[in-house]
Amino acid sequence: MEIFQYIDAHQSDFIKDLKEWVAVESDSVQPHLRKEVMRMMALAADRLAALGATVNLVSLGSHQLPDGQVLPLPSVILGELGKDPQNPTVCFYGHVDVQPAKKEDGWNTDPYTLTEIDGNLYGRGATDNKGPVLAWINAVETFRALKLVDNLWLSNKKPALTYGSRGNACFFVEVECGSKDLHSGTFGGIVHEPLLDLIALLDSLVDSTGHIQIPGIYDSVAALTEEERKLYELIEFDLEEHRNNCGVKKFLYDTKEEILLHLWRYPSLSIHGIEGAFHEPGIKTVIPAKVIGKFSIRQVPHMDLSVVKKQVVEHLEGVFSKRNSPNKLKVSMPLGAKPWLADVNDVLYKAARRAIKTVFGEDPDFIRDGSTIPVARMFQTVTQKSVMMLPIGAADAGEHSQNEKISRHNYIEGTKLFAAFFLEISKLHRNLHETSHTETIN
Amino acid sequence: MEIFQYIDAHQSDFIKDLKEWVAVESDSVQPHLRKEVMRMMALAADRLAALGATVNLVSLGSHQLPDGQVLPLPSVILGELGKDPQNPTVCFYGHVDVQPAKKEDGWNTDPYTLTEIDGNLYGRGATDNKGPVLAWINAVETFRALKLVDNLWLSNKKPALTYGSRGNACFFVEVECGSKDLHSGTFGGIVHEPLLDLIALLDSLVDSTGHIQIPGIYDSVAALTEEERKLYELIEFDLEEHRNNCGVKKFLYDTKEEILLHLWRYPSLSIHGIEGAFHEPGIKTVIPAKVIGKFSIRQVPHMDLSVVKKQVVEHLEGVFSKRNSPNKLKVSMPLGAKPWLADVNDVLYKAARRAIKTVFGEDPDFIRDGSTIPVARMFQTVTQKSVMMLPIGAADAGEHSQNEKISRHNYIEGTKLFAAFFLEISKLHRNLHETSHTETIN
Repeated sequence: MEIFQYIDAHQSDFIKDLKEWVAVESDSVQPHLRKEVMRMMALAADRLAALGATVNLVSLGSHQLPDGQVLPLPSVILGELGKDPQNPTVCFYGHVDVQPAKKEDGWNTDPYTLTEIDGNLYGRGATDNKGPVLAWINAVETFRALKLVDNLWLSNKKPALTYGSRGNACFFVEVECGSKDLHSGTFGGIVHEPLLDLIALLDSLVDSTGHIQIPGIYDSVAALTEEERKLYELIEFDLEEHRNNCGVKKFLYDTKEEILLHLWRYPSLSIHGIEGAFHEPGIKTVIPAKVIGKFSIRQVPHMDLSVVKKQVVEHLEGVFSKRNSPNKLKVSMPLGAKPWLADVNDVLYKAARRAIKTVFGEDPDFIRDGSTIPVARMFQTVTQKSVMMLPIGAADAGEHSQNEKISRHNYIEGTKLFAAFFLEISKLHRNLHETSHTETIN
Repeated sequence: MEIFQYIDAHQSDFIKDLKEWVAVESDSVQPHLRKEVMRMMALAADRLAALGATVNLVSLGSHQLPDGQVLPLPSVILGELGKDPQNPTVCFYGHVDVQPAKKEDGWNTDPYTLTEIDGNLYGRGATDNKGPVLAWINAVETFRALKLVDNLWLSNKKPALTYGSRGNACFFVEVECGSKDLHSGTFGGIVHEPLLDLIALLDSLVDSTGHIQIPGIYDSVAALTEEERKLYELIEFDLEEHRNNCGVKKFLYDTKEEILLHLWRYPSLSIHGIEGAFHEPGIKTVIPAKVIGKFSIRQVPHMDLSVVKKQVVEHLEGVFSKRNSPNKLKVSMPLGAKPWLADVNDVLYKAARRAIKTVFGEDPDFIRDGSTIPVARMFQTVTQKSVMMLPIGAADAGEHSQNEKISRHNYIEGTKLFAAFFLEISKLHRNLHETSHTETIN
């Protein structure tokens, strides 16, 4: 195909562009680098304008850091290319800020100097998310359309399409006996210790097989269909490699299917820690007066956030009341993000599937993400259109980690994929307002 | 009595001395004040020498702070006055270093300027422990003997004699799944979370009534005798005031006797916190890879440290094995201090009791300390003599806290008490090598 030949012929230009973008330390975590994020946004906006797009920067105001410092938020770049209502419209979304990175963190190369080693392009943002954003722009360059992506394949070699993510309901459980921490010599044995209450409460949440013990919590979980189960069987996923990557000796389940089902379409409950108790190395014989347990539930369709909250509160209050403790209990849900799920039979997915087949010669894995991607759900709600995540980075890309990379293969074939996707969409000849892709949080 | 008249007549001198000692900021916690501790030691040594004592400073070397800084330890002052083997020998022990104090902490007066308000002498070290040490020196000044004390009465008005303290066995329980913290989106629902294991382990230690669940742990606890129970009935102790001071709504027990028995002569188990989990404000959806629970058991006669350790380890290993967790469990006891218990029928206690009756006109409370005082046990083991704690500070003295004070009454009558105690000891006309008093830790 002529387009693919064009892309192959321009590999060095595309990589040069990526090198220029990676060189900008657009770390959005460290306040002193906020100006670099702004510089990166300007670069990206200029690049879109050069394509002929109308570019608008929409200010999101500022935010306050825990230390009181107020920082401007980077603007959102809205680029629009072409307005013919006869043609389908595709909306792409991605980001050009990055996670912090320092050579001393364990990088083999300078994280802000894109470096090619054995066909891999190492650099902060190479895969998350500057590379994929540039791949869209490269593809658009050819067609004069517009696009933006952030996600990974499940395997290192097989392409994937992402159609769902779990929600996240975070809980605080606070138990308090008074305003002063007590000494375990002077009060140990005569007070109802808040930390003992809290530990009993936390211990009531999940059994040792990973099953959540909160009554009713599984009631609204969508039943697994036969069609869905088949999707899981086809997925390429190396269980042993995944286990080795995370360092645990054994998972809770033995088969690929069970693991993926429990990561993607069943809820899970994790306990993160306790605020207010002694947490330093060594010993402090304190009875903490006020402790706050933190846990979260990754919920799935069709669990309802307000129902989940009610079930959690009722369960914890029930366990607490059986203890006859005079302490004060407070349960809150400071954060609740909904799960996202798309219809894989939507035309958007059909177009992407055909494009993948064209470029990679095989069908993609249909995958979900165990993490929470609020923006996918948000786009779906706001546009009332189908949302799809079309990743081009492989599972071993190391996003958020040391030695982040995108392979030259994935970057260039990814550019081709996006170009092929345009072709498929144009074939549909319908006025679709679709939204592709998103952002991982937490 | 002539001696008491002498002490009454010299009140202002004694208070002037205390003012001079309190003025030295001998804070042994903050490294930059170590030189003030040294200056305080020199003052105390000079004061003993002025009494005619032979004074030896025994170096204890230096210690290293967590930040790597090496500081000299204050020497121990050994003072000896008189060597006649025909006479009884009494050894006193006390300390002249203090806890940190700043006006901004909530003091009403400058903590290093002894200030008298309504018959109370406010100042850091007034009661812990410069006042009592000076009271001994004041008493010795009259008799040409030598002495040193640190402890409090149980009530604000009734004198007390302390005859025991609980031990402290500190435990670390470590559960580890690997070297990397995991993300709860990517791994929640498929791994055995170490924090869930740890919480189940910690939850197995104590029930909601405060009863320790470790099999066999109560087996060696000395049975309560009728004579002992009577001691508890006589003790003056305001349960409501104690409850209000610590701020809890309700204690685990309702009567004075039960409360004191569970503080002093029954073991207790407190959980202090968890190292390695998320402990900050806010949310972090982490699955911590390695968490260490910290708890301690205040053990009592005749519990044996090595038996306690064995019982704890076996219990936790048993609970853990039932969970079928692939994680690594490690239980250790980084610190084990034994309880201390003296015979209240020993002549030392009889002499002190008579001295208290003479000075205060009433019998003392015979009390124990729920905290751990390793030096009491150590003196008893090393000297093979009876050890007694003879406090002169009242329960409301605020040691280690803001607005520490000793009342003029307690300081002057305390000086008389020590003088009267010398008289009682001299009556015994026996060559006793006794050790009085000690130091609270943890």
